[in-house]
Amino acid sequence: MADFSMVQAVQMATRNHGMPLEALRYPVTPTGLHYLLIHYDIPVVDLGSWRLDVDGEVQRPLSLTADDLRGRNAVEVCSTMECAGNGRARFEPMPASQPWLLEAVGTARWRGVRLRSLLEEAGLGEGAVEILFTGLDRGVEGGLEQVYQRSLPVAEAMRDEVLLAYEMNGAPLLPQHGFPLRLVVPGWYGMTNVKWLTAVTVLDRAFDGYQQEHAYRLRAGEGDDGIPLTRMLPRALMAPPGIPEFLTRERALAPGEHVLEGRAWSGHAAIASVEVSLDGGESWEPAELSREPDSPWAWCAWTYSWSAAPGRHTLCCRATDKAGNEQPLEPGWNTGGYANNSPQLVVVTVR
Amino acid sequence: MADFSMVQAVQMATRNHGMPLEALRYPVTPTGLHYLLIHYDIPVVDLGSWRLDVDGEVQRPLSLTADDLRGRNAVEVCSTMECAGNGRARFEPMPASQPWLLEAVGTARWRGVRLRSLLEEAGLGEGAVEILFTGLDRGVEGGLEQVYQRSLPVAEAMRDEVLLAYEMNGAPLLPQHGFPLRLVVPGWYGMTNVKWLTAVTVLDRAFDGYQQEHAYRLRAGEGDDGIPLTRMLPRALMAPPGIPEFLTRERALAPGEHVLEGRAWSGHAAIASVEVSLDGGESWEPAELSREPDSPWAWCAWTYSWSAAPGRHTLCCRATDKAGNEQPLEPGWNTGGYANNSPQLVVVTVR
Repeated sequence: MADFSMVQAVQMATRNHGMPLEALRYPVTPTGLHYLLIHYDIPVVDLGSWRLDVDGEVQRPLSLTADDLRGRNAVEVCSTMECAGNGRARFEPMPASQPWLLEAVGTARWRGVRLRSLLEEAGLGEGAVEILFTGLDRGVEGGLEQVYQRSLPVAEAMRDEVLLAYEMNGAPLLPQHGFPLRLVVPGWYGMTNVKWLTAVTVLDRAFDGYQQEHAYRLRAGEGDDGIPLTRMLPRALMAPPGIPEFLTRERALAPGEHVLEGRAWSGHAAIASVEVSLDGGESWEPAELSREPDSPWAWCAWTYSWSAAPGRHTLCCRATDKAGNEQPLEPGWNTGGYANNSPQLVVVTVR
Repeated sequence: MADFSMVQAVQMATRNHGMPLEALRYPVTPTGLHYLLIHYDIPVVDLGSWRLDVDGEVQRPLSLTADDLRGRNAVEVCSTMECAGNGRARFEPMPASQPWLLEAVGTARWRGVRLRSLLEEAGLGEGAVEILFTGLDRGVEGGLEQVYQRSLPVAEAMRDEVLLAYEMNGAPLLPQHGFPLRLVVPGWYGMTNVKWLTAVTVLDRAFDGYQQEHAYRLRAGEGDDGIPLTRMLPRALMAPPGIPEFLTRERALAPGEHVLEGRAWSGHAAIASVEVSLDGGESWEPAELSREPDSPWAWCAWTYSWSAAPGRHTLCCRATDKAGNEQPLEPGWNTGGYANNSPQLVVVTVR
């Protein structure tokens, strides 16, 4: 853990909450349980003076109010979002950042305006290379004062499912989820989904800001430029069966037939299979999949029937997607502690 | 920290989130930002089969559906709730439990049925001493398998402001806040406000269950029976000014005039004064108070105008209530790590 203290880990964890894993039982994550990762502070936004500017390499710059956006065609996407740092606290040593174990995920129904339709309205310039998204959240990171900014290549930004969302689960965005507007890029890790959006800027070059060039890259060591994080790697999670011990969260369960249940997702392709291990990863059995919620961008549900015999068991689950990506059994170390999708372990005492 | 590991602290902190302190700017805490402390798992409740039983030492036991409750007179109370463990992670060493720093607080508009009216409907027996509240949440704690239960003396339970709430901020309770019904006892620490309520049982004796007799007591050491926690001690908090550094949360601010702002509350009486220190607690100046929101059970707002000169400053705030309780400058150690209301320190670099 190097120079990252318990107090620093706790002050991050207590403000950036995860989704308690029993909430895997809901196809759409209830309000307030979706994970949050907020780099700086939650801005208080005055809707009356707020505008979305669409500018840069465009033919007709736009400056839109919230009402302007609600006056355009609305689209809705049900989508699973995961933090690129999910699993970081399972690395040894843990890189100094938000200490996620497994819970940095959630699924929401996002409603808003298709990004492509606004870009077409503004008219992309011939030199357009990337689209830059700028939030209102401001802070200091890596020694630099900055607002939160991320970019997307034009081809990704123009995809059907990419939204500027003003609603989440049928209600206006909550302050902590980016009120009044955020980017939603289904399939990509959470850092892409810029909150408190204030500008969409068309660039004639690749964006080289802090959150693109320094953060959110898989680096083997400090000298390595690394490769950028984009889409979510596959992961299966299990709602822990039985009841928890308050401090350790270890589970107790009565002997007999139990249905293990959970969800699995990948940003690269649909889930092809989920496997369950009852012996800590020594042997694996297939789980049953079902499409709930019914969206190509959301997690799917899985179940597995378990005849639980008395004793202490280490349950695991792992997913493989239709593009052939599978969860590795060992975490792949990187300096930022990103994308650790090694399988969840759930210790259960049956008695 | 003894036998409590970083992983245990993090897995508690990431599921039991605090209120990010910038949310002190809202008189009523937005949905999803109110603190949560959930001992076991969030139960999934089927409203069709759910009932509230009012039984024990009563003349006419009741078994009520959610519709039955909504058919009775509704009352609303705007109330501030704080976890009894708020401040625990500021003890050295930290007792093994949820590692709160300062953020275990929130204010909500609770709506439901007055508890007294249900108790009167059921008819208290002559031997009634305490009212026991039983939740649906079940787990293992202190080596005991248990459901979450807490009691109140009859006189406290009969107070006007004590509700069985089915709405929070104008919407049905969220799963994590106790859907479909929870107890709300304004002025008391959070452990009293039993969630996922399923039974209200009138007792002819004092309840001696785990959460009453073992947990939530101020004990000087392991041999000490201690005294039970009841009402919230006074506390003032400040919305940290300026912008944060991502990892350390230390603040940066431009020189000049700034209005420091925050909230203060006590469960014993109204707030009499809030004081601010600009020098780490050496000297104190009075802040200005205002009644917002307008409820005797909610926090009040305070402001203080600060001419910030370049340099590194340690800001503090502290409250005193009209019953004469004031925040102590040093934390009062106890084995459970409860009720640490020593003043918040905010380090700000003005540059």
